[in-house]
Amino acid sequence: MTRNGLVIVNTGDGKGKTTAALGIVLRAWGRGMKVCVIQFLKHEGGAWGEVRAANKLEIDWIKTGDGFTWTSRDMDETTAKALHGWEIAKEKIISGAYDIVVLDEFTYLLTLGWLDTDAALDWLKANKPAEMHLIITGRGAPQPLIDYADLVTEMKNIKHPYDSGIQAQGGIEF
Amino acid sequence: MTRNGLVIVNTGDGKGKTTAALGIVLRAWGRGMKVCVIQFLKHEGGAWGEVRAANKLEIDWIKTGDGFTWTSRDMDETTAKALHGWEIAKEKIISGAYDIVVLDEFTYLLTLGWLDTDAALDWLKANKPAEMHLIITGRGAPQPLIDYADLVTEMKNIKHPYDSGIQAQGGIEF
Repeated sequence: MTRNGLVIVNTGDGKGKTTAALGIVLRAWGRGMKVCVIQFLKHEGGAWGEVRAANKLEIDWIKTGDGFTWTSRDMDETTAKALHGWEIAKEKIISGAYDIVVLDEFTYLLTLGWLDTDAALDWLKANKPAEMHLIITGRGAPQPLIDYADLVTEMKNIKHPYDSGIQAQGGIEF
Repeated sequence: MTRNGLVIVNTGDGKGKTTAALGIVLRAWGRGMKVCVIQFLKHEGGAWGEVRAANKLEIDWIKTGDGFTWTSRDMDETTAKALHGWEIAKEKIISGAYDIVVLDEFTYLLTLGWLDTDAALDWLKANKPAEMHLIITGRGAPQPLIDYADLVTEMKNIKHPYDSGIQAQGGIEF
């Protein structure tokens, strides 16, 4: 095996960051690879299309808000959930059980300052299994993350249906 | 039902045009929607990750080269296959059997001049079922297609692993 685990970043203000990660998940699943998706910020508790699909496909799918009890008085709940999510992500990454781990909306932890970018990257550089592919999505990927990544794509909004007053569509956008 | 069928275009020189479409396919499948994917130019005959996945999921997946017999002496085989693909696509779109139809790598038919853009768009405007979502991928989406679409995203290459000599990866890129 000479396979290298790629670090893939989907960033930018357009659509398709998460869906492109999901497309890779689907491909990988088609090849019998083991996939874990960790969603950091959104979709909590919702019966979204991708969560339903993941359940049907028996892909490990973790919404980091789930089962989380907020106990700290010193920290904002959202921040605490996000950092709790990072702990879960580290556990999954280091486990060696997965061919692909997706950290969906992870960039926000870095851009909002909840997690130190250099510390997170140092951890990944030291601990990510060499064969494991890592996919990170979210707007505004910081430069050190781009430097660390092998493949970076910016999803750029050219035209958006909200502009013409069309509502979000089940199955298409969530 | 007030659902509007969206026309979504994923264009640009970066990765993620097809995978973002696949991610939507996965979401939609999770919601029990009927999906048809038509691949125009690549992946013919290959046992690619997405084709394997589609087979497992019982999604209709058509590689337009399949079962095609080239009889014309006046036309390049590739062109003929592409136009044959367009005939298949029209049939699937007009059938009303699908919630979502994906025309993968379709823009090349337009940019390479195999198919007249205005004629193709006129056909779609007249025949696409109002409820059906249509997803078109490929580089260099012509302006009239962008004008027709509701949601257009440009996938922009920021960093590519080929630049550092890393080979394409099964399950990730095909």
